[in-house]
Amino acid sequence: MKTLKVALLGCGNVGSQVARILIDDADALASRTGARLELTGIAVRNPDAPRDTDLPKDLFTTDAEKLVEDADIVIELMGGLEPARSLMLHAIGHGASVVTGNKALLAADGAALFEKADAAGVRLAYEAAVAGAIPILRPIRDSLSGDRITRVLGIVNGTTNYILDAMDSTGAQFADALAEAQRLGYAEADPTADVEGHDAASKGAILASLAFHTHFDLANVSCEGISAVTAEDIAAAKEAGFVIKLLAIAEKLQDDDGAEGVSVRVHPTLLPRTHPLAAVHGAFNAVFVEAENAGELMFYGQGAGGAPTASAVMGDVVSTARRLVLGGPLGAETPTGHVPALPFEKVTTSYSIGLQVTDQPGVLAAVARVFAEHGVSIETMRQTIHGEGGQAAAELRFVTHRATEAALAATVEAIRGLDVINSVTSVLRVEGV
Amino acid sequence: MKTLKVALLGCGNVGSQVARILIDDADALASRTGARLELTGIAVRNPDAPRDTDLPKDLFTTDAEKLVEDADIVIELMGGLEPARSLMLHAIGHGASVVTGNKALLAADGAALFEKADAAGVRLAYEAAVAGAIPILRPIRDSLSGDRITRVLGIVNGTTNYILDAMDSTGAQFADALAEAQRLGYAEADPTADVEGHDAASKGAILASLAFHTHFDLANVSCEGISAVTAEDIAAAKEAGFVIKLLAIAEKLQDDDGAEGVSVRVHPTLLPRTHPLAAVHGAFNAVFVEAENAGELMFYGQGAGGAPTASAVMGDVVSTARRLVLGGPLGAETPTGHVPALPFEKVTTSYSIGLQVTDQPGVLAAVARVFAEHGVSIETMRQTIHGEGGQAAAELRFVTHRATEAALAATVEAIRGLDVINSVTSVLRVEGV
Repeated sequence: MKTLKVALLGCGNVGSQVARILIDDADALASRTGARLELTGIAVRNPDAPRDTDLPKDLFTTDAEKLVEDADIVIELMGGLEPARSLMLHAIGHGASVVTGNKALLAADGAALFEKADAAGVRLAYEAAVAGAIPILRPIRDSLSGDRITRVLGIVNGTTNYILDAMDSTGAQFADALAEAQRLGYAEADPTADVEGHDAASKGAILASLAFHTHFDLANVSCEGISAVTAEDIAAAKEAGFVIKLLAIAEKLQDDDGAEGVSVRVHPTLLPRTHPLAAVHGAFNAVFVEAENAGELMFYGQGAGGAPTASAVMGDVVSTARRLVLGGPLGAETPTGHVPALPFEKVTTSYSIGLQVTDQPGVLAAVARVFAEHGVSIETMRQTIHGEGGQAAAELRFVTHRATEAALAATVEAIRGLDVINSVTSVLRVEGV
Repeated sequence: MKTLKVALLGCGNVGSQVARILIDDADALASRTGARLELTGIAVRNPDAPRDTDLPKDLFTTDAEKLVEDADIVIELMGGLEPARSLMLHAIGHGASVVTGNKALLAADGAALFEKADAAGVRLAYEAAVAGAIPILRPIRDSLSGDRITRVLGIVNGTTNYILDAMDSTGAQFADALAEAQRLGYAEADPTADVEGHDAASKGAILASLAFHTHFDLANVSCEGISAVTAEDIAAAKEAGFVIKLLAIAEKLQDDDGAEGVSVRVHPTLLPRTHPLAAVHGAFNAVFVEAENAGELMFYGQGAGGAPTASAVMGDVVSTARRLVLGGPLGAETPTGHVPALPFEKVTTSYSIGLQVTDQPGVLAAVARVFAEHGVSIETMRQTIHGEGGQAAAELRFVTHRATEAALAATVEAIRGLDVINSVTSVLRVEGV
């Protein structure tokens, strides 16, 4: 039986689980691939650092370059841009296929890496980069390859879903829900990458690239996190039958001039509570796909964690090993489409706008006039009166029909300037209605 | 650019959609595969039959044998065992790869067909055979190939899910819900294959084969349909926080003697209403997968219908065409594992048992003694009293811990023989607790 040399870069949460599976499940992996997968080494910064694992000491090395030069398959789980990028290029240059979970690197520089891998005739696989254990890249790339995807909505960040789900079920404010998530290990000490949507934005770029057969990178993604979402937003959403989720959205749209393009964006989003994504609780992830023929599909599972992410990594390792055993070309990943990214202001979306107004005649007419002047039409309006007589104040909540971001943003600005408005209490986009 | 000849067998609901996509999306398919996919003909019994499609008349032929002899890819959508099987073998014998949605044929005779395809070095792809548009076979086979699947629970028949969902939301009896489903086109005039679970059983055999890397066929599947499920069963389930779903279940278990085997079965099942499968409504399908490392995954979408199923067929066509363009072996599908199928009586499961009893002292003790004698332990018991005084009757509902089917069946039989029992009102298996 053939032996394939597997080099592992990084031995954190995911890497140590991958090493465990390669060693413990060696026989099963051999029978599934037709080759022994030999773990030749694990490159780490400090081989003597204390580790919560009983992996053989002699596997550890600091010489990552040398390790990848001698490998058939390199598993990159270091994260970050450098030295991950250089080592991947070094591996590709030496004829190794690469399996990675590095969403940040792929979203920043995927196009160049795929080109190098194609030119070298090696595989660059990355199922673990989006939504952890959920098999989503292969279904989008292969199973839906004979269909036309129109939209992808993803809950692809477990930390923010955990926080929003906790706010929804307990009524907590963002800061308290974040603190609790940090205490339980669902959020990091510096939660910026998660709560400001950067992690979701990387995954959105990768999902958009696959769904629309065109390279999109982080620069194409508009991104807004959840730190401004308040308990009041969530309560108002709940009352109106909505839940707030941080979604990575990639959809094909026409701009004002009828030109087709793809919008890739991340923002807190109101979803009807009957939408399948609304039932995704805690730190779970899910990706909802709409395609012309297939209709609505959803893929649900654990989006992070050592063992779940290691499962996705190992799926890529086994697929790559099978292909290396069977022979033949490893298969190009180069996108074949050329759909432009739409600038955010040209994207059409729907807004939910909350206003505190003085309860006096004419206020609704004034607000409605602003909507009309900007060509934005109103789908629903709800009014809630607080207090009585001279103390009375009203809260108005509008949900608009779809209009461009530019028109919607201008509408909100103009409303802020009205005398009859005390404050604009919330502005959130709506999907799935 | 290379041209690949594609022959279509059958032009029903799915076939006509596949033909439409091949013709209308020819350019996109060519750019994704690197080859023109030329639809060379559509074999049907009667080319002159009226069809709700504007496909070119000259594509139709009755000479299916001749059509497949000249094809690179044969798409079999005739259904049924013959002549589908003979034509597939004929195609394989002439070096064509085959894409099929024929679950009945695969469940009856898949092992022989895969062997022939492997020997001929052609691909036999069948994503459309299970859960329509939902990409489930490729994720199980490829994405989870580095993991160990422990259990698959599938809602894989839209007709029965529609009926059970209607019974759950309206309180209707089975016969009325079936009649309504027939009126709306969700159930056929002869609904036997759906409501008695035969269709789900075929899909269960295919899912089990993929999940456990071993060939299972229909003979390995225990099957019970939903025609005996009553409105009272559903109401009682609802009250206890459960929903009743028809599940195809494939799971790895140990029998009494500690020997490992796979149980494949289809039966109405009580699921907690918080389980992700409980939120699958109407005619939608979903497959819930549990794996050692990945944890819980769910795949959700449309399980039937012309366009959705055609999407799955076309995914296989594009993947196969890509491989034919790139060259190299088409890849073996032969399972590598050899896990035996467990006989149903050795399978451990949990029962919910409803009893009408005379409300008299000692009845609970008598019933509890029967459970104990058969080694079955009780997880929960609920008692509801109807009427008063001498007219009083009680309803008891037990949920057991897991025990073998044999022990549970014997327990129910012995309970039926007790004097204090008026009737056993329902016996249903429970999962997901």
